[in-house]
Amino acid sequence: MGLAGVKIVLVEPAGPLNLGSIARVMKNFGCNDLVLVNPQCDRSSPEALKMAVHAKEILTSAVIEDTLIAALQGCVRVIATVGRDYGRDRPLENPRIALPWLLENPTEPTAIIFGREDRGLTNEELNYAHRLVYIPTNPDYPSLNLATAVSLCCYELSQSAATFSSKNLSTPEIAPVDVVETYYQELESLLLAIGYLYPHTAASRMQKFRHLYNRAHLQTTEVSMLRGLLRQVEWAISHQHHGNIQDG
Amino acid sequence: MGLAGVKIVLVEPAGPLNLGSIARVMKNFGCNDLVLVNPQCDRSSPEALKMAVHAKEILTSAVIEDTLIAALQGCVRVIATVGRDYGRDRPLENPRIALPWLLENPTEPTAIIFGREDRGLTNEELNYAHRLVYIPTNPDYPSLNLATAVSLCCYELSQSAATFSSKNLSTPEIAPVDVVETYYQELESLLLAIGYLYPHTAASRMQKFRHLYNRAHLQTTEVSMLRGLLRQVEWAISHQHHGNIQDG
Repeated sequence: MGLAGVKIVLVEPAGPLNLGSIARVMKNFGCNDLVLVNPQCDRSSPEALKMAVHAKEILTSAVIEDTLIAALQGCVRVIATVGRDYGRDRPLENPRIALPWLLENPTEPTAIIFGREDRGLTNEELNYAHRLVYIPTNPDYPSLNLATAVSLCCYELSQSAATFSSKNLSTPEIAPVDVVETYYQELESLLLAIGYLYPHTAASRMQKFRHLYNRAHLQTTEVSMLRGLLRQVEWAISHQHHGNIQDG
Repeated sequence: MGLAGVKIVLVEPAGPLNLGSIARVMKNFGCNDLVLVNPQCDRSSPEALKMAVHAKEILTSAVIEDTLIAALQGCVRVIATVGRDYGRDRPLENPRIALPWLLENPTEPTAIIFGREDRGLTNEELNYAHRLVYIPTNPDYPSLNLATAVSLCCYELSQSAATFSSKNLSTPEIAPVDVVETYYQELESLLLAIGYLYPHTAASRMQKFRHLYNRAHLQTTEVSMLRGLLRQVEWAISHQHHGNIQDG
């Protein structure tokens, strides 16, 4: 089974029946790593344990984190799931097309993020994802149950893993989300300092940069390069009198 | 709707939560015809209605039959689902391969049969099916929840029918190569000016930036944003005395 490195990350899950069903289907398809971000229900409740049946250990060993970024620590490929009401400022992909990308390098930790039963994921949370997946549904009733959405993604991954068994592609090292986050913080600070960003619009403008760079799946060496560039710009600004760029 | 002719046939379902979940996912994927053979639970129970959420009419309009052969009346293509413990005297097929066959002639009534939660289908019941489908699962815990099995089959059918194609999914406008090239030229000039690039290594370093941005498939609005950022950096450098960044 090639799914060992894929974390299933649930943000503020509130339904114990869903938690139990998710544990079961994860084990059915060989996914073991469940991460709960600020869960709103008890993973040990009778309802959760009833639905988990023979997968109670997935619930027991689930990691609980306060924030999504903590849950994604070290993950180099991250996909988030969105519903039909997503605003469409980023491309949405079919799970069959996008999810196999998580398995390309079996040594890398990766994650799929699922949002709240009622409200999904915030824009800030979606910004951590490299790609967004939308499961195509009937416009008359597009809203999938959370456990169903997890089931379909685990199933797609396991179907895809079967085809990945013997391939060993050489793939560049993708930067962990937290490393990229450091770059975004540094970029924002610089852009505020030079007056490109204003505090009240910084978040929405930074989101555009995040989307752009997330689509590129930044490599570790590229993040270093981009951070080096920031430092050089800072140096140039503080040494303006030695620079070649003059005021018109 | 391509799935209108496919009946979902449940033999002696016993779990009301499952019934409700099945109704919901059927509506999510555009399947309307539910047939219950000798059901062992009440489709109108509070648990069923709770899980169905906005698909209660699928439960209400479900047809109840005493026998499987009555449920299959008029069906010309029939697939049954089996678990891992099936004896293998008939070939088992992957749902992705077999299920699209149900949709080949949209005017024909067809059916997928799902067995009891605990015991599946009898050999006699399996004999009504033209083909048998097995959803590949982890040998450590192969037994799928009934509602999960129905979910995966409805999902496969809808993917196959391409009923809900990605035509509504947005595709942002990708910038023409020459527009992006202008940006690369401006970036290179700035990086040379601030001493980040040296003339003899500029081409190879710029290639790294090109690869990064090309992977992101830059949109026209993003190129404008990046060019605006370059101009702001140039301005900040020429107005160093007004800036907030100071030499350490």
